[in-house]
Amino acid sequence: MSLLVLKFGGTSVGSPDRIARVADRVLRLRGEGHSVVVVVSAMSGETDRLLTLAREIQPRSEGRELDVLLSTGEQVTIALLSMALEARGCPARSYTGGQVRILTDSVHNKARIRSIDAARVREDLEGGRVVVVAGFQGVDEAGSITTLGRGGSDTTAVALAAALTAAECRIYTDVDGVYTTDPRVAKNARRLERITFEEMLEMASLGSKVLQIRAVEFAGKYNVPLRVLSSFEEDPGTLITTEEGRMEQALVAGIAFNQNEAQLTIQGVPDQPGIAYGILGPIADAHIEVDMIVQNIGGDQTTDFTFTVNRNDFEKAMEVLQRVADELGARSVSGDTRIAKISVVGVGMRSHAGIASRMFKALARESINIRMISTSEIKISVVVDERYLELGVRTLHDAFELDQEPAGQSPS
Amino acid sequence: MSLLVLKFGGTSVGSPDRIARVADRVLRLRGEGHSVVVVVSAMSGETDRLLTLAREIQPRSEGRELDVLLSTGEQVTIALLSMALEARGCPARSYTGGQVRILTDSVHNKARIRSIDAARVREDLEGGRVVVVAGFQGVDEAGSITTLGRGGSDTTAVALAAALTAAECRIYTDVDGVYTTDPRVAKNARRLERITFEEMLEMASLGSKVLQIRAVEFAGKYNVPLRVLSSFEEDPGTLITTEEGRMEQALVAGIAFNQNEAQLTIQGVPDQPGIAYGILGPIADAHIEVDMIVQNIGGDQTTDFTFTVNRNDFEKAMEVLQRVADELGARSVSGDTRIAKISVVGVGMRSHAGIASRMFKALARESINIRMISTSEIKISVVVDERYLELGVRTLHDAFELDQEPAGQSPS
Repeated sequence: MSLLVLKFGGTSVGSPDRIARVADRVLRLRGEGHSVVVVVSAMSGETDRLLTLAREIQPRSEGRELDVLLSTGEQVTIALLSMALEARGCPARSYTGGQVRILTDSVHNKARIRSIDAARVREDLEGGRVVVVAGFQGVDEAGSITTLGRGGSDTTAVALAAALTAAECRIYTDVDGVYTTDPRVAKNARRLERITFEEMLEMASLGSKVLQIRAVEFAGKYNVPLRVLSSFEEDPGTLITTEEGRMEQALVAGIAFNQNEAQLTIQGVPDQPGIAYGILGPIADAHIEVDMIVQNIGGDQTTDFTFTVNRNDFEKAMEVLQRVADELGARSVSGDTRIAKISVVGVGMRSHAGIASRMFKALARESINIRMISTSEIKISVVVDERYLELGVRTLHDAFELDQEPAGQSPS
Repeated sequence: MSLLVLKFGGTSVGSPDRIARVADRVLRLRGEGHSVVVVVSAMSGETDRLLTLAREIQPRSEGRELDVLLSTGEQVTIALLSMALEARGCPARSYTGGQVRILTDSVHNKARIRSIDAARVREDLEGGRVVVVAGFQGVDEAGSITTLGRGGSDTTAVALAAALTAAECRIYTDVDGVYTTDPRVAKNARRLERITFEEMLEMASLGSKVLQIRAVEFAGKYNVPLRVLSSFEEDPGTLITTEEGRMEQALVAGIAFNQNEAQLTIQGVPDQPGIAYGILGPIADAHIEVDMIVQNIGGDQTTDFTFTVNRNDFEKAMEVLQRVADELGARSVSGDTRIAKISVVGVGMRSHAGIASRMFKALARESINIRMISTSEIKISVVVDERYLELGVRTLHDAFELDQEPAGQSPS
């Protein structure tokens, strides 16, 4: 008998009917001999309803009282799900974040979990009960209610799974797993049976919004097997786990992309030590996050410096950069918002050379011009003209034969 | 500087606008130099919304999880009111029942308060903050959320006022005070400036539904001055307090009435010891509460026995009584639902004879037949034919000159 932590998001518990379906699913898993802890979000629409109320009172609501307000959303769901379970003859008990003592820091609206007192949950499980826990919320040392920020319920589920050393943490959502790339872009995208934590982090942060990044980090850190699966279908979904136990490594797990960035270039900067800091320091001071950074040395003791930022920060970044250019005596500043970033992700590339050249060759064959390149141990990203985004993704998906099950990868 | 505990019901906090008005009122009282604790109910309609959700899951919702669900209603209000106060520059802090440790027994859905840990509230008050507490809810020894039953917010306010030895507990509601009788029945009904706890209990339990009986009992027990006043007007309302400090006692405080009872009579019961228990025992066993009881001795070694029950229990009570009559060999059983109870209430009657005769004389003058009479130290109740209800109330209101300020009673 193994312990499972299940997490259902707002859409999956969006109505009494859907909550009843979640209860049925829990019962099936119990019938298979599992112990079950369920983490739930607020019913879809509830958090927005509460935020609207708050904004009518105070347009810029934040802080302690906003957490007191928003945390009621999940509390409603835990009560309803526990009732649904008990109506089916299944003993259940609900807990708010504070009751199960999910201790966090005191940063309201985006608190971080410090510890969980799992003793009470264990006692209930031993007593044969299903434990239903409110996601997204905790309590600080002073006893004030905190929330973990949007999507924090995933983190609650993983943290509970870690504290209870659960066999698996299952995140039920409205997608049925993690794909080799977005199926809306490449029709032959394939659902992955497994992906590593590191790959998932790259896929998530690059735009495949299936799971909260914090939840994946947490799962990786505490080695909690994490499964993403559909709350509306019976399907194994995708297992996110360590590299261990895999017969054979796929070279590339998937193709991620991102259309939310803009590119800025400062040209003809005198090439001297500290120049990178001279340029990026003021950008950081303006609270703008920089993603890719590329520097070329020109022929005339000057250098060109290119970086990308979130599109929302583009205007502000251009202003800062223009001021920096004036101070440094740079030749010119230019920017472009019509760019896209495409990344090839896979832990297999650690031990296999040639991924980069295969990638560049495929793009060249389609005459897609590469404007920037950035690499890490398990990914290679390129920036291209925005209009080549879909073509680029499809080209790379085909080049690495991602529509096919990798040879030697075990089917379960 | 005195400490006030204010309580606002669902209608008074029914919208963000109304919550803003409550905040304004709190600020005015602070401006007058008061320390303020506010107890609030769920926004009007919210509890019903939650109950509807629960019933879709489980038609007969009750127990622990129902409390987890319903307690979110007040939690929403405390957050919104605290935000409204802070938006006005007034430091505020909200607490759920569990956070301020309103410790109750474990009888879910109708728990009773055992103790309150007022230390945290005192600390906030000393720090110059307004404390906003969720009414209606508490927490049991095991840390489970409990609720006090409908109207329990009044009890929360009184209990907090007692724990903090507040100068006054003010219950803001949609009526502006306690009247000598229902103004819809007697147009010349007068609002009372003061009434004693005992009188208020009789008035409330007899049908003037202004305050929860439990809250009045609690206030009387701990001697908490209680004021009922309008949340929409500026007005002193009615102060409920002890008899002390009153210059002169009014003989009668008011006329209460009740149209929710039914009368049952069993005639020709053999008059022998234990007969009352023989009749009322089976009624109690059927979980039917009995209000008035009258027994007459007949001339033939038999007795007639009449009592009243809630109209909802009438059918069931008739069935039980018929069975009892058969067993005891009584002559007949009869019942009537078209009755009304009218009561004259006043602590003054303790020391003044003649109230009963004045009452009966007034009713006789209008040819109103009295079917039952029951008396206590501070009230005299009669049962009359339902069609005489309004006439009877008006007649008694005039007979005791309740439209006029009693002579000698100080005007404040």
